[in-house]
Amino acid sequence: MPIPDRTTIEAAHERIKPYIHHTPVMTSAGVDEAAGCHIFFKCENFQKIGAFKARGAMNAVLSLSDAERAKGVGTHSSGNHAQALARAAKIMGTKSYIVMPRTAPEVKKRGVRGFDGEIFECEPTLAARESTLAEVVKKTGAAEIHPFNNYEVIAGQATAAKELFEEVNDIDVIIAPVGGGGLLSGTALATKYFSPKTTVIAAEPEGADDAFRSMQSGKIEPSQSNSIADGLLTSLGDKTFPIIRENVKEVITVSDAEIVSAMRLVWERMKIVVEPSCVVPLAAVLKSKAKFAGKRVGIILSGGNVDLERALKLMTE
Amino acid sequence: MPIPDRTTIEAAHERIKPYIHHTPVMTSAGVDEAAGCHIFFKCENFQKIGAFKARGAMNAVLSLSDAERAKGVGTHSSGNHAQALARAAKIMGTKSYIVMPRTAPEVKKRGVRGFDGEIFECEPTLAARESTLAEVVKKTGAAEIHPFNNYEVIAGQATAAKELFEEVNDIDVIIAPVGGGGLLSGTALATKYFSPKTTVIAAEPEGADDAFRSMQSGKIEPSQSNSIADGLLTSLGDKTFPIIRENVKEVITVSDAEIVSAMRLVWERMKIVVEPSCVVPLAAVLKSKAKFAGKRVGIILSGGNVDLERALKLMTE
Repeated sequence: MPIPDRTTIEAAHERIKPYIHHTPVMTSAGVDEAAGCHIFFKCENFQKIGAFKARGAMNAVLSLSDAERAKGVGTHSSGNHAQALARAAKIMGTKSYIVMPRTAPEVKKRGVRGFDGEIFECEPTLAARESTLAEVVKKTGAAEIHPFNNYEVIAGQATAAKELFEEVNDIDVIIAPVGGGGLLSGTALATKYFSPKTTVIAAEPEGADDAFRSMQSGKIEPSQSNSIADGLLTSLGDKTFPIIRENVKEVITVSDAEIVSAMRLVWERMKIVVEPSCVVPLAAVLKSKAKFAGKRVGIILSGGNVDLERALKLMTE
Repeated sequence: MPIPDRTTIEAAHERIKPYIHHTPVMTSAGVDEAAGCHIFFKCENFQKIGAFKARGAMNAVLSLSDAERAKGVGTHSSGNHAQALARAAKIMGTKSYIVMPRTAPEVKKRGVRGFDGEIFECEPTLAARESTLAEVVKKTGAAEIHPFNNYEVIAGQATAAKELFEEVNDIDVIIAPVGGGGLLSGTALATKYFSPKTTVIAAEPEGADDAFRSMQSGKIEPSQSNSIADGLLTSLGDKTFPIIRENVKEVITVSDAEIVSAMRLVWERMKIVVEPSCVVPLAAVLKSKAKFAGKRVGIILSGGNVDLERALKLMTE
């Protein structure tokens, strides 16, 4: 399968529509005042399983042949993709095998078990995740659905930005957070096909600035993985990086303190629950106000799955 | 002015529409599963100033004559009505004088100051509030806008339920929280005029169960004011009680532990920020499942103004 084109993304959207929420776009006078621009938040925190990942996983599972799907699906994921894949498998009547780092938030493990996903815990390193998953796939014959380095997943994630463009005209800039790059590459493709005048910017934690460095060096750099934004700690993949390199104008990095401050703003002013990874784009706007002054800015609010205990600690420390 | 009739509420709605949000109605498969019924949440936590009180205060200020309004408006309020009145006054270019208990959450005081309201702090008793306000009104000539015992305010609060009935058909039961009874009496009147087959139920904290006792005794009982639901600690008024007595079928009381549990469910499953007072109706449904089994239940989510530290401490203790 080649890089998803316009038709592929349109087909993905039609395919997943019965199984996902058409999430609302929210605006906030208070946040606009703080940011100095007009922000349209695509609220994927209200998506099924509380994150945009419901889109990509659903598209990937729906795109399998019946024979493939019957053997189940497997993945390694620090959280939201895990729940998303377990949910998609349950909807389609098949099994899911989920490799998770033992450090993953309890709320995310509960979510996977709630969709009858079978969890395999491993050490919180990429090597441990991959080797554990390889074993599981070998034993079960399950189809591996990578969290981001998979064109069906990318096409699914693209539908969030597609919906935003269908609802709001003349967006000057769209910003997505970047971890492995599934949401960002999907957003970049949706922008290219459905709103080509819009600039695409990525936002990334300083402590996991591998995408920033990869854009500088021209090759995929490893992540150091040191940020509270636990959904953004992975490195780019060989499917996501070329799309990002070609279609994303720049990567803005933000500190953990800036992330907490943006998170607090969203909770207090917009009355919605968002996870740290989710507010990285807003933190980038608040940090680089001159760049966005007076513009119409689209932000994909990626998810709301956060342990309340952890949120309390972050916001009161 | 008599008890608001259908025409009065329709006129109030038209009057305030330019100044308030038409808030969304949300549903949640996760909450429905926990509750055993189908709940339609009218999200007044997304209302201007984060609570339904924006409706009643706006209607009251818009209903004054120009000469009355020029002298400013005053009230005593533990929080949301204070911000709502300050906002309405600012929009209409007049002054607001707000008597607040010194124990009111800081986030609510900041909100009042943000709308240029002048705050007069007093002891957290009804007597202290009333005497302080009487002084302020005497000195300034301001029009007193009572937080709930005021027909224009009641007509304004009624518009939340009116909007819910316009959006969702065949609601079997509608539940509102009750403190002074402004939202509840407005909800009861909106139901009577716009969805007469719907049953109206009130939900109240056990530690401030004056409405429950008032319904038993047939007269207004004082409140003991002991609950984390700080928006629901006041007693009924002589304008709200007769409406409630005639139109509300029953009052269900819930404990603080049940309120915290419902609050956690909303934050975790719906990804929205709600204050303790706001989830009292959901706590009532979760406590009395048999009564609501399989029904279509409307709930006014009254507000989202809560100190994050306080909320997170409540939910993680």
